[in-house]
Amino acid sequence: MNITMKSLRVMPLSSRAVAFALSALLFAALHAYAQTDPLPSWNDGPAKKAVVDFVQTTTTQGSPKFVPPAERVATFDEDGTMWVEHPMYTEIMFTLDRVAELAQAHPEWKDQPPYNAVVNRDREAMAKFTETDMLKLVAVTHAGVSTDEFAAAAKAWIAKAKHPRWKRPYTELTYAPMQEVMRYLRANGYKTYIVSGGTQPFMRVFTDEVYGIPADQVIGTALATKFTPSNALMLEPKLLLNNNNAGKAEDIYLFVGHRPQAAFGNSTGDAEMLAYSRGGNGATLQMLVLHDDAEREYAYGPAQGLPDTKVGTFPQSLYDEATKNGWTVISIKNDWKRVFSFDQ
Amino acid sequence: MNITMKSLRVMPLSSRAVAFALSALLFAALHAYAQTDPLPSWNDGPAKKAVVDFVQTTTTQGSPKFVPPAERVATFDEDGTMWVEHPMYTEIMFTLDRVAELAQAHPEWKDQPPYNAVVNRDREAMAKFTETDMLKLVAVTHAGVSTDEFAAAAKAWIAKAKHPRWKRPYTELTYAPMQEVMRYLRANGYKTYIVSGGTQPFMRVFTDEVYGIPADQVIGTALATKFTPSNALMLEPKLLLNNNNAGKAEDIYLFVGHRPQAAFGNSTGDAEMLAYSRGGNGATLQMLVLHDDAEREYAYGPAQGLPDTKVGTFPQSLYDEATKNGWTVISIKNDWKRVFSFDQ
Repeated sequence: MNITMKSLRVMPLSSRAVAFALSALLFAALHAYAQTDPLPSWNDGPAKKAVVDFVQTTTTQGSPKFVPPAERVATFDEDGTMWVEHPMYTEIMFTLDRVAELAQAHPEWKDQPPYNAVVNRDREAMAKFTETDMLKLVAVTHAGVSTDEFAAAAKAWIAKAKHPRWKRPYTELTYAPMQEVMRYLRANGYKTYIVSGGTQPFMRVFTDEVYGIPADQVIGTALATKFTPSNALMLEPKLLLNNNNAGKAEDIYLFVGHRPQAAFGNSTGDAEMLAYSRGGNGATLQMLVLHDDAEREYAYGPAQGLPDTKVGTFPQSLYDEATKNGWTVISIKNDWKRVFSFDQ
Repeated sequence: MNITMKSLRVMPLSSRAVAFALSALLFAALHAYAQTDPLPSWNDGPAKKAVVDFVQTTTTQGSPKFVPPAERVATFDEDGTMWVEHPMYTEIMFTLDRVAELAQAHPEWKDQPPYNAVVNRDREAMAKFTETDMLKLVAVTHAGVSTDEFAAAAKAWIAKAKHPRWKRPYTELTYAPMQEVMRYLRANGYKTYIVSGGTQPFMRVFTDEVYGIPADQVIGTALATKFTPSNALMLEPKLLLNNNNAGKAEDIYLFVGHRPQAAFGNSTGDAEMLAYSRGGNGATLQMLVLHDDAEREYAYGPAQGLPDTKVGTFPQSLYDEATKNGWTVISIKNDWKRVFSFDQ
């Protein structure tokens, strides 16, 4: 609100008084806003401090570890870092539901592994799926359609699917504290990317709405596409980018062109991304979310004596690597005041 | 400049008069600026009109072909569209120079094709290079080093190399009219990308300086990289993305996530990118630069009876495709008032 000379001259005196009063109010409000905690869902502690220190050090002009705005990039893993990944990765739930849906046009799947296990909801057989089985399922559910058709299917699913424990859409099961970090970084000139083992076409249908992250800042596992004479792009059953482990560092270079200044993950698949980030100039920040809160979310590791898991494994070796390298481990139990935005 | 009541009150009367005079001046200057032609290097004609109409139609609120800011993407081919590609693609010149440089550590190349042809500057043998030969040269010049080492080599070359005809750095041989289109689109909310058959690591060393395009908006042919335990990314002699022809449409989807609203090219390798752009919602714009000005630049096609070439081929079939599809062909001779910014 800028009260100019000209606008004041045409106002009657009483209006001028109101304008000045509003001005004062606005000033007070802005002042209060500037002092508001950018991370209200975090308990005070080393994790919160690491985030705030990083932002202040890299964005304060004259700081020896100042990072120019053009280089400010932060990368976030999706499953287990930005939203819930237990009891099973969201995209696997989508894949299984889609197999069941597509099975209506494929009566032969009823007796054909691995499809029959999904069609017959044979949990025992599904538990024994090999990587080849999973790739077969991904091929039939994620390929053979145009990019537009796939996006429509994924969008429809994400709009109606619900998490078995909270009975809420998966898009609500995003961690409020991590959303705050994302917004805090963006407010300080950081460009934020999702860098996930999940597929890029799947994630792109919700990242804008859930995180305010546009399609061109979503890096994921990618199938090859084929441009057709009818001016469509068809998804092919052929892996182009495997965005896990070293693939995360390699794909960040492919999409971004340089190391991220900050990187956030929660499992073995994120280690190389964090290491790549650590090599940057100026201050850098690496953080790993440790799921140690069975009550409010889940508890799994097996680091620190937590139960073992195949979904988002965080082994003790990764914990030790974090300690050695100066990466910060976030304890959900101790560092987060609340987990979800619907928590009180 | 916003002259507030408060700032005016503390000024002596003479300063207030100066402030008002400055205000008036600023207003006049801004007004003149707003009316300045955004495309001064273009002659009036259908090509210039196509650009201006597209920008006005897609950015005017309430226009039936309005494009929301989040969807405003424009893609530009590099060689022959943004800068000179004759007598030979700039990156090929770099590749040959780099082979000669690396040959000092490879005495065995003196007798080993295809390297010996380059080392001995045997133009006849080079003219007969097959695609396999070129890939071998790209492998030794673009791989086997870290991404940082490659960038340093490319940066050093581009800083000193000169075009054989103009004796100027290649980075000065960019087309002023196309730079104006880029800036005009950006000023109207368009995100501009380079989408080139050249390699991404090579282009990224100059696109920011030459076009104001950051590394994450450079799409190109890409070799695979490998993340190493020493926290470096090594370039591998393995093609990951072939960013030509259909590859351009496919890679735009990979990097951007949707069709570009406008696309600019100059040869057969750009046809699919333009077709992909044409499928978008709202108004779209596709343009092809025809090199028909031997005096100020080069003349080649072979469309419209121009001399044939293997570097940036624009055949009659592409010209006919453009006419059929409503793509605009830019005649350098007729549409451009000047070609380079150093032209008068």
